[in-house]
Amino acid sequence: MFKGKKNMGAGSFLYPTPLVLCGTYDSSGRPNLATLAWAGICCSEPPAVQISIRKQRHTYSSIIEKKEFTVNIPSIKHTAEADFCGMASGRSVDKFDRARLTPLHGQFVDAPIVDEFPFCLECRLLHTFIIGSHDIFIGEILASWVREDCLSDDGGPDPLKMAPMVYTPTKGGGIYYTIGDACGKAFDAGKSLMETVNL
Amino acid sequence: MFKGKKNMGAGSFLYPTPLVLCGTYDSSGRPNLATLAWAGICCSEPPAVQISIRKQRHTYSSIIEKKEFTVNIPSIKHTAEADFCGMASGRSVDKFDRARLTPLHGQFVDAPIVDEFPFCLECRLLHTFIIGSHDIFIGEILASWVREDCLSDDGGPDPLKMAPMVYTPTKGGGIYYTIGDACGKAFDAGKSLMETVNL
Repeated sequence: MFKGKKNMGAGSFLYPTPLVLCGTYDSSGRPNLATLAWAGICCSEPPAVQISIRKQRHTYSSIIEKKEFTVNIPSIKHTAEADFCGMASGRSVDKFDRARLTPLHGQFVDAPIVDEFPFCLECRLLHTFIIGSHDIFIGEILASWVREDCLSDDGGPDPLKMAPMVYTPTKGGGIYYTIGDACGKAFDAGKSLMETVNL
Repeated sequence: MFKGKKNMGAGSFLYPTPLVLCGTYDSSGRPNLATLAWAGICCSEPPAVQISIRKQRHTYSSIIEKKEFTVNIPSIKHTAEADFCGMASGRSVDKFDRARLTPLHGQFVDAPIVDEFPFCLECRLLHTFIIGSHDIFIGEILASWVREDCLSDDGGPDPLKMAPMVYTPTKGGGIYYTIGDACGKAFDAGKSLMETVNL
């Protein structure tokens, strides 16, 4: 035991994780969305993203079949829609229709992006890795679409205008949070400590 | 092209990503920390986390050698220390010492956790997957330590007390953000949409 610490056990805990919706067309051609908190960037050359999905999910078989998918980042104004897409199954429900979201066919892949969402990635399946309850899909990022109303003056995405959500597991259930204030710049906030190294 | 959208190209973009520090002992036994924004949960059975690291980094060889590592979540009050540990190399600098952080030897693995940080995972290497510039290490989570001053009344971790950072890539460089207000509960925020399915 460590003094002043509590062991929460062997669980899938990370604070926070991103919240994304994976877009696919299923075997009948219907666009579908799966809400995932288990996703992350995993490579820069090639640029690649990992998503982890249970074999039982409808999206799993769509990715295996099409070998293409999208990763769509909702804004906090789409909290209800994002949560809904993690509860309903695309086997029985047209989630785009129910959530009043607009599927746009990808420019680079055979998968739908969400028109209303601030940021979307088009991905081609590079690898499938078997882990356990969940498998990992690695997608090469072929394009990244940002809504023009979420751009900053320099022409790049503005995180606060995009207003993405993050997910945190808690004992009482998962909670979605906004992102708040900036607290530093990368390769800048640690400069004073770095100076002690270079002396 | 999509109307009202801009293609930012094929890049490693996700908004936001977590920010974690990977803890290892190197071959000389010195504790080390590598700051990573490319990490995520990837499985629940076994509970597992993925981290992506370039082969050139000192931490890469330590994980290959020890097959054990920790994932440590800094609080916003450690922004400078976290950023510093992404700039300096453990080959030439004792980062724990410079950043005035305290390494505690893991209870389950031969890797150090950061005493001052609100949340730490102890991980055993399950898989190494080759992707490209970065490889993916999959770690089975054996323990998760939360500081007692970051617990909520129900005995679980309180995300706002932990005050983790997130990372966002922008055109002008990476920015660290706090997490802000809660904007919904998982499996709750979408209930009204779910009710239309169950009619």
